[in-house]
Amino acid sequence: MEQTKRSELRRFPARGSHETALIHSILDAGFLAHIGFEVDGQPFVIPTLYGRDEDRLFLHGSSASRMLRKLETVVAFGVARKMMDTAQKTEALRVISEHVLAGRWADIRGPSASELEATTVLEFVIEEASSKIREGDPIDDEEDYDFQTWAGVVPLQLEAKAPIRDPRLSAHVEAPGYILHSRLR
Amino acid sequence: MEQTKRSELRRFPARGSHETALIHSILDAGFLAHIGFEVDGQPFVIPTLYGRDEDRLFLHGSSASRMLRKLETVVAFGVARKMMDTAQKTEALRVISEHVLAGRWADIRGPSASELEATTVLEFVIEEASSKIREGDPIDDEEDYDFQTWAGVVPLQLEAKAPIRDPRLSAHVEAPGYILHSRLR
Repeated sequence: MEQTKRSELRRFPARGSHETALIHSILDAGFLAHIGFEVDGQPFVIPTLYGRDEDRLFLHGSSASRMLRKLETVVAFGVARKMMDTAQKTEALRVISEHVLAGRWADIRGPSASELEATTVLEFVIEEASSKIREGDPIDDEEDYDFQTWAGVVPLQLEAKAPIRDPRLSAHVEAPGYILHSRLR
Repeated sequence: MEQTKRSELRRFPARGSHETALIHSILDAGFLAHIGFEVDGQPFVIPTLYGRDEDRLFLHGSSASRMLRKLETVVAFGVARKMMDTAQKTEALRVISEHVLAGRWADIRGPSASELEATTVLEFVIEEASSKIREGDPIDDEEDYDFQTWAGVVPLQLEAKAPIRDPRLSAHVEAPGYILHSRLR
């Protein structure tokens, strides 16, 4: 793939790849894209389903696609600012950590001064937001109920699988409850 | 929540909500945000972990967060154009449908002329793209292996649960194999 500054891998370039086959395989393994665009200087991000044909993606032009009806989304607008105060940054990292994996923060050593220095944390104040939830059975046009094909809902759920220990972990350290029974968000 | 044109719910407004409590509950149920911004007219979208405190979101400023190491992502740049040709639009919708749920297209009646007219399909040609995969065990600073806390990987997997029939579906229509054994992307 062509490469210019905008797609340059700035962090951990050794873990990134511009190899076309890898890029295609990751695209083929997913089904939800987040499309960024701007109108009159306002950036937007919209989730949408996609398909791929070689180097072309086809995007369903509506985030309310019939196959994506129960997706719970929030679109929030606001201004992000870089946090500078060390104590506030630490507290923000604690909030993020506890949001993702409640109980973990008390079990780690906490960020060092140099790690805090090297970590960018943004505070994003929500100025406006909208949400969308669609619950319930499919809604078809009345005449389509005569068409004999299966209809219904296939629930998708993100699940935490059995944790895999770091081989370098001391044998006496057991997986804590917040790992074994993590309530996945 | 405040509401202006940018967060206006243009489609299916009855299904959307600007209610703060609902917006907060959806934010609390997720852990991955897609941040849109633009630099010199180029829109970017970056996935990142977040936490919430009232109407503030805290965003980890690196998409290579330590807690998100194995996320497979592709960031692709290109120009999207609205597809106008009816046959090409139909073929693009087939590609999207088969990408999300292979086998389904042959079982549906296909879009009508007026549905095609009302549906926007975008063709996005990938001009540049980068990918990132990080496999394997955690990598800690050498001195941190003495710190006695659990370390490892908690695999996350999106799974399809048992399909729920539309109550209006004729009793003799069985769920086809592509529903019962859908290979989730």
